[in-house]
Amino acid sequence: MVTLNDARRVIDAAEKKAQEIGQPMNIAVADAGGNLVAHIRMDEAWIGSIDISIKKAFTARAFDITTEDLATQSQPGGQFFGIHASNDGRIMIFAGGVPLKLDGKVIGAVGVSGGSGVQDHAVAMAGAEAF
Amino acid sequence: MVTLNDARRVIDAAEKKAQEIGQPMNIAVADAGGNLVAHIRMDEAWIGSIDISIKKAFTARAFDITTEDLATQSQPGGQFFGIHASNDGRIMIFAGGVPLKLDGKVIGAVGVSGGSGVQDHAVAMAGAEAF
Amino acid sequence: MVTLNDARRVIDAAEKKAQEIGQPMNIAVADAGGNLVAHIRMDEAWIGSIDISIKKAFTARAFDITTEDLATQSQPGGQFFGIHASNDGRIMIFAGGVPLKLDGKVIGAVGVSGGSGVQDHAVAMAGAEAF
Amino acid sequence: MVTLNDARRVIDAAEKKAQEIGQPMNIAVADAGGNLVAHIRMDEAWIGSIDISIKKAFTARAFDITTEDLATQSQPGGQFFGIHASNDGRIMIFAGGVPLKLDGKVIGAVGVSGGSGVQDHAVAMAGAEAF
Repeated sequence: MVTLNDARRVIDAAEKKAQEIGQPMNIAVADAGGNLVAHIRMDEAWIGSIDISIKKAFTARAFDITTEDLATQSQPGGQFFGIHASNDGRIMIFAGGVPLKLDGKVIGAVGVSGGSGVQDHAVAMAGAEAF
Repeated sequence: MVTLNDARRVIDAAEKKAQEIGQPMNIAVADAGGNLVAHIRMDEAWIGSIDISIKKAFTARAFDITTEDLATQSQPGGQFFGIHASNDGRIMIFAGGVPLKLDGKVIGAVGVSGGSGVQDHAVAMAGAEAF
Repeated sequence: MVTLNDARRVIDAAEKKAQEIGQPMNIAVADAGGNLVAHIRMDEAWIGSIDISIKKAFTARAFDITTEDLATQSQPGGQFFGIHASNDGRIMIFAGGVPLKLDGKVIGAVGVSGGSGVQDHAVAMAGAEAF
Repeated sequence: MVTLNDARRVIDAAEKKAQEIGQPMNIAVADAGGNLVAHIRMDEAWIGSIDISIKKAFTARAFDITTEDLATQSQPGGQFFGIHASNDGRIMIFAGGVPLKLDGKVIGAVGVSGGSGVQDHAVAMAGAEAF
């Protein structure tokens, strides 16, 4: 189970990482059901990334995979190309979504959006490690 | 402008109120553009209320009105009956959304969902007063 | 045919009327196909009314009727109750949409949103009369 | 803040540019929240471009980037491939959306649609320069 306290710990760690790299981010945490537990938009972060951060968290839990890895398999010719058209547009196929694991089992996810794919993934990883 | 710090202050006050009345809630804060700044779902709060809290915040800013007041005018026969069909399903017409004002001007809103209409409105008001 | 010049003349007249009554409005003009020709949001007008003004214009042309009249027939028990669920959510059933006529034939419409139903209708009528 | 006067100045400049190159356009201006301030469709411009112009303006503000630049990064293999599935279909990833800046900060955007990507971008740039 991902409690609100858990989500806040993940968000705090991710926010700290975002501050270190100097890029304001949207950070979202989803639970085992893929449903949002908490979200923050740092000052000056892109408004288009609100939705993306929430959907990256959903996606990472929906398929128990980082969206960075899913991206590889969702390119034209890849085995999951077209997956972004499923789930009523809730699937994001670029880096920034990372599963949250407990004893090796995925029980939630964190989604980050606001910078480059490399930055988003790094901030999400910092959040996941704090879980 | 509604900063992340502002949003957290509003959410903290609303969360405290929700704890006092013993009803777990979803609490969301939107800025002047109606865009989400932050959201929390308290442990055990309804997952169906995630979306509602975010949309109540949007609605309260979209029309600079509490959703409790909008509800009155959106009933059958009311001057705004049918408004819930606008804005691509983002309009909530029951209590729980309250504008955030600075010097008498609306610059954001808080949306709460998780209990009765009376409870949602009371929690949102507690949040708005902390702004 | 509703040209851009026609739409601007309608909008100017409606904007002037809105200024007279002291209520900032969203004003939209649609052509014979129900498609948007022009839209303005006056400073401080509700952001939730952008969509509503555009949809009121569509609705007034879609059924060649004022949305004030349509409202009467779309209440519970009325012959068109439920019509707001049609056309992918583009139907507005409260006052503020008025057809634009040429030689007795509807060839477009104006939609206004930003105040009470009475205000919205008055501003839309001012626009329609300038057509 | 993007006032209606600002939006009209941007639209006038863009419209003039469109007339110079002889291609009728849809031109839209959004504010800091990504919400529409004004829109025009020049006579004979494509009706399918109404929506696109409004969404290009939203997109350019949502990510503080021209949609021409976003296009480059949203191709298969790019770091943002799949971003067009976010924000409920409001993201346009081809040229014609340009941020409006004040003192180096993005506070709105202009979106243009009606011709080739090169034409759309040129008309949007003419609008942005008038801001």
